[in-house]
Amino acid sequence: MRKSTGHKIVIIGCGNVAWHLAKQLAAFKNYKLFVYNHKANSLLNDFKTKLKCSVTSNLKNIVTDADLYFICVADKNIASVAKRIKTKNSNAIIVHTSGSAKINELGDRSNTAVFYPLQTFSKQDEVNWKEVPVIVEAKNAAIKTKILNLAKEFSNNVISLNYKERLKLHLAAVLVNNFTNALFVAAADLAAKDKKILLPLIKQTVLKIQKLDPLAAQTGPARRGDKRVMEKHLKLISKNTELKKIYLQLSNLIIKQQAKKHA
Amino acid sequence: MRKSTGHKIVIIGCGNVAWHLAKQLAAFKNYKLFVYNHKANSLLNDFKTKLKCSVTSNLKNIVTDADLYFICVADKNIASVAKRIKTKNSNAIIVHTSGSAKINELGDRSNTAVFYPLQTFSKQDEVNWKEVPVIVEAKNAAIKTKILNLAKEFSNNVISLNYKERLKLHLAAVLVNNFTNALFVAAADLAAKDKKILLPLIKQTVLKIQKLDPLAAQTGPARRGDKRVMEKHLKLISKNTELKKIYLQLSNLIIKQQAKKHA
Repeated sequence: MRKSTGHKIVIIGCGNVAWHLAKQLAAFKNYKLFVYNHKANSLLNDFKTKLKCSVTSNLKNIVTDADLYFICVADKNIASVAKRIKTKNSNAIIVHTSGSAKINELGDRSNTAVFYPLQTFSKQDEVNWKEVPVIVEAKNAAIKTKILNLAKEFSNNVISLNYKERLKLHLAAVLVNNFTNALFVAAADLAAKDKKILLPLIKQTVLKIQKLDPLAAQTGPARRGDKRVMEKHLKLISKNTELKKIYLQLSNLIIKQQAKKHA
Repeated sequence: MRKSTGHKIVIIGCGNVAWHLAKQLAAFKNYKLFVYNHKANSLLNDFKTKLKCSVTSNLKNIVTDADLYFICVADKNIASVAKRIKTKNSNAIIVHTSGSAKINELGDRSNTAVFYPLQTFSKQDEVNWKEVPVIVEAKNAAIKTKILNLAKEFSNNVISLNYKERLKLHLAAVLVNNFTNALFVAAADLAAKDKKILLPLIKQTVLKIQKLDPLAAQTGPARRGDKRVMEKHLKLISKNTELKKIYLQLSNLIIKQQAKKHA
């Protein structure tokens, strides 16, 4: 990447992924960064003041000779943003960073690729990029090599996958991050003033599966088929129809997962 | 505990909780440990060979002058085990370690208590007892003081709660441990050969809520109300009726949790 295509990178969008991409690219020092956002706000301004990027909210001001464009916007806006990119560099590569959008959202151009970092990003959190899996797809072999090389500057964990495999991992990410977090919210509600009391258990739950297959790590009343305990829990949340349904369904999932294991 | 009631402790059961209790009590060095299990098996034998406990599978052989009995058996067996304890020591305390059983399962005795460690225990894993929340309940104030003191030898995180509060935390523990783990199993299925790829995300999910309220840490398509992405996910699992239901319900939970936050 560095030698063959030069150093100008445009980042489109100023959300959490854009932020951590720019922060890391800035740390590499051999890229010149330009950030565009559809409106001038404090998020955009942070790229200027904290990461020394050139920033603009006017599409006409974007450099036309960039080597790479990172589109870091919501899936539904990728296609329209991609269409509006005007470049004089016929080798410029256009990349999106989504786990759930097809590469074709970038249009018919041949120089397109996907660079999907499988991680949850928050601006205020540090990211250890070396550990972040980066999933790559590209329209052709030459572009793929370039994007794989760039991804390897970020991470030790780069893999090349097609759309369906990427979407499966994106769904898996929703399960282990979004849904797990929703359970944390529900649990914190139950624990009320004792919220913090659950943190050591949550930590241990995750430590366990670093070593054990999660199927083997499973414990609890559903795993044991302990109906008495399950009934006590259900009685406790008898007025919370939603949590009750989730309790029944996830208990059922555990029972089936374990049955499959023993089958 | 040490000075006033002496040093003989009987542990009933030889599962994961019994193991880690005995291991820690053995490390304290000032207790003499006796372990009973209803059958002589290799689990029971490990207490003898690895922790230097006296072990027996014959109830008649249990010491009758113990100061404390830890009942570490399944909820449904607590009452019958408690009934069968014969002691000549009128000050002996009988304790169960369950998150979901009432103290009354120990019978009408006045010297009873609950010592519930809110953690997931596996024999092969190390436990950092200092961090394990221990939830205590007792039949009377004098017993409570003794059990609180014992619990504080184990942990820096000891609290006294009634049955309903304890059961709520037990349910919360099921959500953050058992159900979260079931989602890990489902996600690993989706990731197939790339299972390990989810570990950094899982780690980050948990790191995030050490600092942020989980309600604020929530991200993802349900949080954003991104129906297009949700439909892609649902199409991907259209043949997996169960996972589909869970997807819809947990997405719905996220939407309601976030609406409540903004209300």
